[in-house]
Amino acid sequence: MRLIQRVAPKSIAQALGEVRVTRKFFENFSGDQVRFLARGFTNPGDHLGQMSSGNRWPYGPVALITPFNFPLEIPALQLMGALYMGNKALLHVDQRVSVVAEQLLRLLHHCGAPPTDVDLLHGPGTTMADVIKAAEPRSTLFTGSQRVAEWLAVETHGKVFLEDAGFDWKILGPDVRDLDYVAWQCDQDAYACSGQKCSAQSILFAHSNWVTAGLLDRITDLATRRKLANLTVGPVLSWTTKSILDHTKRLLQIPGAKLLFGGKPLSGHSIPEVYGAVEPTAVFVPLEQALLPEHFGVVTTEVFGPFQVVTEWQDSQLPQVLDACERMSHHLTAAVVSNDINFVQHVLGNTVNGTTYVGIRARTTGAPQNHWFGPAGDPRGAGIGTPEAIRLVWSCHREIITDFGPVPPAASLVQS
Amino acid sequence: MRLIQRVAPKSIAQALGEVRVTRKFFENFSGDQVRFLARGFTNPGDHLGQMSSGNRWPYGPVALITPFNFPLEIPALQLMGALYMGNKALLHVDQRVSVVAEQLLRLLHHCGAPPTDVDLLHGPGTTMADVIKAAEPRSTLFTGSQRVAEWLAVETHGKVFLEDAGFDWKILGPDVRDLDYVAWQCDQDAYACSGQKCSAQSILFAHSNWVTAGLLDRITDLATRRKLANLTVGPVLSWTTKSILDHTKRLLQIPGAKLLFGGKPLSGHSIPEVYGAVEPTAVFVPLEQALLPEHFGVVTTEVFGPFQVVTEWQDSQLPQVLDACERMSHHLTAAVVSNDINFVQHVLGNTVNGTTYVGIRARTTGAPQNHWFGPAGDPRGAGIGTPEAIRLVWSCHREIITDFGPVPPAASLVQS
Amino acid sequence: MRLIQRVAPKSIAQALGEVRVTRKFFENFSGDQVRFLARGFTNPGDHLGQMSSGNRWPYGPVALITPFNFPLEIPALQLMGALYMGNKALLHVDQRVSVVAEQLLRLLHHCGAPPTDVDLLHGPGTTMADVIKAAEPRSTLFTGSQRVAEWLAVETHGKVFLEDAGFDWKILGPDVRDLDYVAWQCDQDAYACSGQKCSAQSILFAHSNWVTAGLLDRITDLATRRKLANLTVGPVLSWTTKSILDHTKRLLQIPGAKLLFGGKPLSGHSIPEVYGAVEPTAVFVPLEQALLPEHFGVVTTEVFGPFQVVTEWQDSQLPQVLDACERMSHHLTAAVVSNDINFVQHVLGNTVNGTTYVGIRARTTGAPQNHWFGPAGDPRGAGIGTPEAIRLVWSCHREIITDFGPVPPAASLVQS
Amino acid sequence: MRLIQRVAPKSIAQALGEVRVTRKFFENFSGDQVRFLARGFTNPGDHLGQMSSGNRWPYGPVALITPFNFPLEIPALQLMGALYMGNKALLHVDQRVSVVAEQLLRLLHHCGAPPTDVDLLHGPGTTMADVIKAAEPRSTLFTGSQRVAEWLAVETHGKVFLEDAGFDWKILGPDVRDLDYVAWQCDQDAYACSGQKCSAQSILFAHSNWVTAGLLDRITDLATRRKLANLTVGPVLSWTTKSILDHTKRLLQIPGAKLLFGGKPLSGHSIPEVYGAVEPTAVFVPLEQALLPEHFGVVTTEVFGPFQVVTEWQDSQLPQVLDACERMSHHLTAAVVSNDINFVQHVLGNTVNGTTYVGIRARTTGAPQNHWFGPAGDPRGAGIGTPEAIRLVWSCHREIITDFGPVPPAASLVQS
Repeated sequence: MRLIQRVAPKSIAQALGEVRVTRKFFENFSGDQVRFLARGFTNPGDHLGQMSSGNRWPYGPVALITPFNFPLEIPALQLMGALYMGNKALLHVDQRVSVVAEQLLRLLHHCGAPPTDVDLLHGPGTTMADVIKAAEPRSTLFTGSQRVAEWLAVETHGKVFLEDAGFDWKILGPDVRDLDYVAWQCDQDAYACSGQKCSAQSILFAHSNWVTAGLLDRITDLATRRKLANLTVGPVLSWTTKSILDHTKRLLQIPGAKLLFGGKPLSGHSIPEVYGAVEPTAVFVPLEQALLPEHFGVVTTEVFGPFQVVTEWQDSQLPQVLDACERMSHHLTAAVVSNDINFVQHVLGNTVNGTTYVGIRARTTGAPQNHWFGPAGDPRGAGIGTPEAIRLVWSCHREIITDFGPVPPAASLVQS
Repeated sequence: MRLIQRVAPKSIAQALGEVRVTRKFFENFSGDQVRFLARGFTNPGDHLGQMSSGNRWPYGPVALITPFNFPLEIPALQLMGALYMGNKALLHVDQRVSVVAEQLLRLLHHCGAPPTDVDLLHGPGTTMADVIKAAEPRSTLFTGSQRVAEWLAVETHGKVFLEDAGFDWKILGPDVRDLDYVAWQCDQDAYACSGQKCSAQSILFAHSNWVTAGLLDRITDLATRRKLANLTVGPVLSWTTKSILDHTKRLLQIPGAKLLFGGKPLSGHSIPEVYGAVEPTAVFVPLEQALLPEHFGVVTTEVFGPFQVVTEWQDSQLPQVLDACERMSHHLTAAVVSNDINFVQHVLGNTVNGTTYVGIRARTTGAPQNHWFGPAGDPRGAGIGTPEAIRLVWSCHREIITDFGPVPPAASLVQS
Repeated sequence: MRLIQRVAPKSIAQALGEVRVTRKFFENFSGDQVRFLARGFTNPGDHLGQMSSGNRWPYGPVALITPFNFPLEIPALQLMGALYMGNKALLHVDQRVSVVAEQLLRLLHHCGAPPTDVDLLHGPGTTMADVIKAAEPRSTLFTGSQRVAEWLAVETHGKVFLEDAGFDWKILGPDVRDLDYVAWQCDQDAYACSGQKCSAQSILFAHSNWVTAGLLDRITDLATRRKLANLTVGPVLSWTTKSILDHTKRLLQIPGAKLLFGGKPLSGHSIPEVYGAVEPTAVFVPLEQALLPEHFGVVTTEVFGPFQVVTEWQDSQLPQVLDACERMSHHLTAAVVSNDINFVQHVLGNTVNGTTYVGIRARTTGAPQNHWFGPAGDPRGAGIGTPEAIRLVWSCHREIITDFGPVPPAASLVQS
Repeated sequence: MRLIQRVAPKSIAQALGEVRVTRKFFENFSGDQVRFLARGFTNPGDHLGQMSSGNRWPYGPVALITPFNFPLEIPALQLMGALYMGNKALLHVDQRVSVVAEQLLRLLHHCGAPPTDVDLLHGPGTTMADVIKAAEPRSTLFTGSQRVAEWLAVETHGKVFLEDAGFDWKILGPDVRDLDYVAWQCDQDAYACSGQKCSAQSILFAHSNWVTAGLLDRITDLATRRKLANLTVGPVLSWTTKSILDHTKRLLQIPGAKLLFGGKPLSGHSIPEVYGAVEPTAVFVPLEQALLPEHFGVVTTEVFGPFQVVTEWQDSQLPQVLDACERMSHHLTAAVVSNDINFVQHVLGNTVNGTTYVGIRARTTGAPQNHWFGPAGDPRGAGIGTPEAIRLVWSCHREIITDFGPVPPAASLVQS
């Protein structure tokens, strides 16, 4: 494998010109607007002949590290973004699924992409770590676990964009309507893909009006319909059955906690023990207990599987709900299920999550099909799925001031 | 002193509403466009009732650490930016000049600013370091030395924006014109404020046409006019006389190197020994020697005083000049002095500096009076001086998707 | 008076550079962002060396014609916009108030504005019409009556931006709340400045829930408090007392119509007969009658004085309300008073008014203090009050494509 | 044929949602960014709960009238733009070629486009004129002759966007280089498609350095290679042979004028007499003669065929060249062939043409393949080919201010 080199960034025009060759054959990734991603701006200057311009400039040598759960979508979107903006990319995908990325590259080459534009590193993450240290890419995009993200941030002195842990919350507001739809969306957000989306619903704050209206029964009913047979539930790649059930037990020791449904291993399957296999599970924890310092950590631990915490709140407890959302260490996706515009404004104004759905159709999952997806409240936060995300992660601001003259008269020049 | 708290960010409307109170009394900082800094965008969604919006959102609790050399401009621009975007700020200014920041705050309070919007920490940098560790601001802006910047980047796991070392280069292109003006601008860029601007010219790549035309004589002539008496040269705060002269000696040991002018202590003054006091100095180093690995480090060491390296290049050596610019570790300001549009395009397309002036009037200093000022090629790079800079450093992207309905029919809902 | 000439537009940089001289002395009009109004954009091209840029370009010679009701605000905002974008302006203000514009120009000259940047034409509108015909400005901004606007549009072959008739509607939605506030806002929108704002409320569609809650009593109560003594009602400049009362009578002949309040001349005053002097007046017309073709014209005639039509609607009549709004010939300001987000979305999605307030605090008046003000649904529609308005009315798009080479090889050039 | 109706514009979300159905099957027109065309912006308001937003809103009922020379490109680009922005369109294409538009619509229907979104009117322009008068579309896009454009502008009271006459100029600057390429581009710009592009080069201002270098010989050589046999010259649809030759004669009567090449009918063909058939033709007219009032009109008459005027200028005559460009009545495309950046800036700063190419590769033709194409300096000016063009022609600004509360206390409410 060839190590990445500190090549000079090519001019945007030239770089994107080359990428155009690819584009002609790879239409479904781009459309006609690729070069518009590098749109800049100009402002008149202070005197005749001066103009300042702001440009989105490539970093040059960059690295991408992406996880197992979206083996095509995440590397494809981020890699094409990196290339569109004129960078030279080194790609590493979780080794359990990196065969998919290899096929993507072979497809790109088949379509005419220059083979020197991307380097792919197959193998364990530790090798990629060594390469990063040696090659010193100007920027590295990392999507994956919080632990590795923080290690990488320290190792690169912060030259990273991160999309890591997602303990994603949903608040059901006081106005109950469309119960069937909301219950269905809760079930989807928590358990689709066995809860292995970064945006999966990790905690549900249900207003007591919804509990009274029967929401918990509905989501129980929906969850218990999920079967291995039709793949509405499936293996978990990064948590074992035992670790999920142990976590469930820890939660159930909190005073007032109770199991809403699930909490049992799946049966009748041949899923290897290195993976997890559990029923869709929800644990109810009383709000006041969840907020106690001794419980908050375990309640807000992200389980990357078919698992959620459920709690209930009264009108008077809204400040505590918002405090809980604020105290979580990461702020990825969130949902405020309500058509009460004043309630919606209040919650939005007091939270900082990156991708936030509001309204009766709000969900935690959904992006990046047609929206920005990424955390907020953290200067290292990455984005994916929109032109803004590509511009943020794969380019930097370069201000060029042209000042072609005329020069002022010599008599006006004094030293300072 | 009250420690910063992890307060929830207020709604932008509310936060900026409060700042308006200040603004009415503090017109010269803002004009009527303050709230436009928080401009967002909207896009139609995929179905009736859905809309996605991108918002510039405050971080909430943030910190600012600024240096000695612009005791008012840097803290004022960055602090007002932080406040305009709705953050709560903790400010630390180099203790030798933090009295200026205190007066700024008193002025703000006098004008009506809420006294709880900003906390000011007087004292040594080590205390500020302790506070950062304890308070964990969501983001920290640091302007100052490269050493502290890298320490802070590791300590905060990269939750920083940095404007640190500036080894700033200027290239004089092949087309000679306006010699008096260009020489004057070179003198200003290298020696104004005794070279203690982040954007001061650190190395000059003069095309041999300029040398033939007499540029080196002109800049020598200009430099030797500078006198302590009229403050066109003055004390250096972060390098001693000895350390500057020692650095000069190291450069002069490079084969072919020679002193163009300066290289002597100032005389007849009472500047304390803790500061530096030297004549404006330039050392000529042959290009091929400067590029050797054993010399490149010392040649590209930033001296934060009235000091520059000068070298000369022929047409055939342009690739080496560009390679030198690329190999420098930091990419702050730069200048390409030429009206030859093809030459200008070539240099721009192969470099990555943040603030780059081009044209016969190009200079390395100048921003942020009316342009963005900041490094490029580094995801931690800060900016100052323009709306884009304020938005980059003091806000993050938050995508809010409103989806108020109607909901789809129950029959269309299937589990996945 | 010197006639406007077909001068070439100066370069934006140069033009705005000159305007800067003014700006330094005239801070309250601008702030530091004047030149940012001329912000352009750039896109990479198709091949090395090509770049396209979109610029906001001045027209060059332009004319402004403004009415009596805002003798300072409208000419000042529009004139400064014209100058900021680099145009040379000929100004005509309604001759009853043009002394104000003269003082504005004297102030500008006192502050340093170049005296040749603006020409002012005192005198009757017919003289201005002759000048427009002779001078052929590239564009003319007209604010005033619909009749003159349409004449001017024909005369200039459509080289105009218009802000003319405003028959502005307000819809009160089904959700009643904050009755005192909404009644107060209705009173303000209809009767402040004696109804002589372009944005004054001309018709009120009150949902029956509001009528039941007592809204009509409240607005009656508020209107009858208005007195000439404290100037909460005053003279009408463009409608006489007789013409207003005649119009009232015509409306009262519609079956079911009734006078809510007013309908009488003011007494005890010395207002000349050439002006109008009537009590704040409201006529209630049943919705189904108002919509009949034989009544619709008179119901939707704008009275530029303290006068409004009021009607009432039931849930089932919303399509008729929206049809009425759609059938009005001009679409200036509007208000949808409701916090019911689904109702608000439905009304917005089926109307086209330019400046539309929604929410429980919605009003028809308010802009351009901090919003765009202008009609929509008409390509001739002008705007005032925001950067977008200035850019729309006072500049056009100019695309400049730079293509400095290199040229392709001769062998690749074929004739087509 | 069904007449267009004054339907209410649908909500943007709804309208674009419907268009998406089309889009899935009609990829080469759009890519994934269709709904981004309707991007709006938001600004925080003055108080809690207020926000203003600027939206690109559809007009609703609109008309399109397009010419013979691009029977697919112009109607396709403009029609899809109209639909993307949510309008309901009535399309009329020159009856000689409207069969192409019919096939386009059949293709759209085949791909899933709702058949009610577009009405097509086959037939003479006079019928379309009657329909416009009766249907009163909110806006009409017209591409075609200047005479009809001005008639339509008067008839609709200016509710139009126009892309009409294009008397397009090219200036060759003082710096001669790449002679072969520049001559080839001149030949292409004047004679490709037999000069029947709106952007065809109508007059060439060649600096005497280019004449000395042999440019006129080169373009003569290239023009005389053009043959009917290989379709490098062909029939002219809107000028007859006689009318072109008569115009040539008129020009040759100007003192000093001479025929450079052409000026003869094509022979050996069966092109009907209703069309034109002439050799590529150039008439040289001395600059000082061309500028005389008695000659300027005929010199700047656009011949929509393989015809151009050529003139020569010296350095001292640049003001006259710029004056000529300024005095032309329409300002569509232009080219400044020079890499001398100061010359380029000077010409740009003193002209107002809409699509202006600069640099040694500058051409008058080229857009709208990848640039905005449209006139400047006229508020009725249309655009085609870019997102900005679609937004300008097919949508208007609608400002919506949401103000959901809370309301201020009753005690603060006073009448004004």
